[in-house]
Amino acid sequence: MANPVGVSLLGAGNIGSAVVSALARGADRYAARVGRPLELRRVLVRDTQRARAGIEPSQVTGDIDDVLRDEGTHVVVEVMGGEEPARAYMEAALRSGRHVVTANKEVIAKHGAALLQVANDHGVRLLFEASVGGGIPVIAPLSRDLLANEVTAVTAIINGTTNYMLTAMTQRGADYAEVLAEAQRLGYAEPDPTADVEGIDAAYKIAVLCGLAFNVDVAPADVARQGISTVTARDIAYALQLGHVIKLLARARFADGEVEATVRPTLIGVQEPLAKVDGVLNAVQVEGDLVGRVLFEGPGAGQGPTTSSILADVLDVAQDVAGSRTPLPFIPRRQVRVRPPEEHSSRAYLRIGVRDEPGVLARIAAALGDAGVSIASVIQFDPEVTGGEEGTAELVLTTHRAPGAALARALEQIRQMDAVTEIGNVLPMEG
Amino acid sequence: MANPVGVSLLGAGNIGSAVVSALARGADRYAARVGRPLELRRVLVRDTQRARAGIEPSQVTGDIDDVLRDEGTHVVVEVMGGEEPARAYMEAALRSGRHVVTANKEVIAKHGAALLQVANDHGVRLLFEASVGGGIPVIAPLSRDLLANEVTAVTAIINGTTNYMLTAMTQRGADYAEVLAEAQRLGYAEPDPTADVEGIDAAYKIAVLCGLAFNVDVAPADVARQGISTVTARDIAYALQLGHVIKLLARARFADGEVEATVRPTLIGVQEPLAKVDGVLNAVQVEGDLVGRVLFEGPGAGQGPTTSSILADVLDVAQDVAGSRTPLPFIPRRQVRVRPPEEHSSRAYLRIGVRDEPGVLARIAAALGDAGVSIASVIQFDPEVTGGEEGTAELVLTTHRAPGAALARALEQIRQMDAVTEIGNVLPMEG
Repeated sequence: MANPVGVSLLGAGNIGSAVVSALARGADRYAARVGRPLELRRVLVRDTQRARAGIEPSQVTGDIDDVLRDEGTHVVVEVMGGEEPARAYMEAALRSGRHVVTANKEVIAKHGAALLQVANDHGVRLLFEASVGGGIPVIAPLSRDLLANEVTAVTAIINGTTNYMLTAMTQRGADYAEVLAEAQRLGYAEPDPTADVEGIDAAYKIAVLCGLAFNVDVAPADVARQGISTVTARDIAYALQLGHVIKLLARARFADGEVEATVRPTLIGVQEPLAKVDGVLNAVQVEGDLVGRVLFEGPGAGQGPTTSSILADVLDVAQDVAGSRTPLPFIPRRQVRVRPPEEHSSRAYLRIGVRDEPGVLARIAAALGDAGVSIASVIQFDPEVTGGEEGTAELVLTTHRAPGAALARALEQIRQMDAVTEIGNVLPMEG
Repeated sequence: MANPVGVSLLGAGNIGSAVVSALARGADRYAARVGRPLELRRVLVRDTQRARAGIEPSQVTGDIDDVLRDEGTHVVVEVMGGEEPARAYMEAALRSGRHVVTANKEVIAKHGAALLQVANDHGVRLLFEASVGGGIPVIAPLSRDLLANEVTAVTAIINGTTNYMLTAMTQRGADYAEVLAEAQRLGYAEPDPTADVEGIDAAYKIAVLCGLAFNVDVAPADVARQGISTVTARDIAYALQLGHVIKLLARARFADGEVEATVRPTLIGVQEPLAKVDGVLNAVQVEGDLVGRVLFEGPGAGQGPTTSSILADVLDVAQDVAGSRTPLPFIPRRQVRVRPPEEHSSRAYLRIGVRDEPGVLARIAAALGDAGVSIASVIQFDPEVTGGEEGTAELVLTTHRAPGAALARALEQIRQMDAVTEIGNVLPMEG
């Protein structure tokens, strides 16, 4: 293989260390995709003395210039967070001809347009999929997949902390202070929760989405913002009476040449797709003139999801560096065995028509047991329910997980029983 | 501007004509994105005599060679459908050095790997975002955004016809034959519904997804397939009793170096995200080792959504042709006005603490009315509900859509009323 593509990190906290370990774990796959191995080069940290898993002491530095001077570094991944010096470091990396990948919503929201200009001027790329929606692909779909659309609205639940809190308040009737304390105990909320509960974090993210969706600059300060700290258990109860739930919605609309961006606790109908996005999940709904509505949902934070987005960006620019961008999505296919249905294993739902006589269920249960299929539940439905003849019934059985072949063997037995009038249906079942 | 990027179409049916009109409507935006205008070149049709909106008679041809010989054609969009001659035409276009964009799930499922090899050999791209999930971005997210993941499972509702039918059966207790006739009347099902109701269409799509998710070849014939025609209203009723709904799930799993692919009506718990995907909507859920679960949901068919995906692919390859692929997503931003909150307009939820005395509601209603804010509903909650003092109450009002400034004026009046003890909360409300 040719020379590696060099990746340096700014920051080695939660996310940085997850990126390091994922790069090591996926090394072979990533090398195959890029056509060159990815190599971890420098890691900028505050405390250069601390030992860090997967990072050689010689890679660690406390000086940004060590990263910028390293000729083997092609991609700089910024995961230190905060506005400065992160912004300044990103700008310096771009000016030095390095591609930059970041998870930093604050810097992108406040300085994204300026940094993109610097990247453009220096012929490199600035990617930030991880800055909004954690692991959910949002930035690239807006930048590429929905590009043919005139996007008219983006409506999102993009702060997991507040969604967790509002969900807990809704489901348990709990009060704001109680769920905040709980979220802090569980690590979902910071000791100082201001950025989350006052909607500041969500405002950064909707400002970033405005840029992509409408191709406009919206400063975070231009986002009309209201936090959730004024939402009481009674507001939530009253909203439910009105058929609504309260969600901290980040919204952006584009109409008549003007843009409108808000982050506010909002009553939405319980049947709306976003009303069902609960707990720490995030979701982004985009409306475009061609596509109508599409919804992206998934984990909005966490080491794994954030790493998933950061490395997607890294792999993307690494392909540029390697000159290996092949006609997407072509890579030679793995040859693997496709499992036939007999070897699939799942729970099953069985509807069996029987004559209602003593011992039928026992014989069916025995046939299943003999084949190694274990029964999870049985309900018998009589003719007044089924509309069947007097003296018949339907048995609805659910089984625990079993291989298709075992179930087929049992059904073969059952089919031949005198008291069985039909195998009405056999369907797989989740859970 | 430089020379145009030439686009020719194979097929001018529903989708083809929607692509033509979207290309015309979005011409300025697309030219700005690509850096060169997109030009419609040739359109291959069966009936060359029929007049078609937006297509000059001189552009129409019945001969594929007219398209292949046209030097101005850089991108060929295949929207004729069916296996042959669509496959042969795509191969010929790739061999002639044209990028190909297609919505053809059957050809991609059966011949995708071979065609991608041809594309690769000829240094061009074959893109097929529209082949699965209509307007929902699925192919590109799997190819790019989730690339860092080892994908372990894909679970999808990717046939709108059957999802419409099962949803109707679930919500109304209707029978299979009845909802099939209805779906045919509404144009959701074909006169011969076999491909949909027997899961053939979904099998093509899950085979395509297998290739992208796991980097393996799965032939449509390898997909274990069961249609919905055996599902009765009673199965659905029994499933509901068990806390489940029945969905035609397309699933693919990768484990122990083997792949498993199925399309079967499946019982899933009512709380599962996919259980809530109703009607003609599609949804694709992907599980990866880093990201956990992400869900993509939206319209799985239709002219607009399919055109959205086709043109996303066209714009992507057009940027290659134009050599204008700028550091994504950089393009100079539009300067627009950001509307201040006073000018936002929405419905509102108002919780107002009052002393329970005659005439309070009338005065509040008058203040709202004077400001031009119209009331949609009022509920009064007494101290036994609110926990407030004897003689107090809370009024919960909802308003029709009104500008923020009008609402603020009304609230200013209301705040000064003697009988009003507090403006408890003011939240926007959807719907």
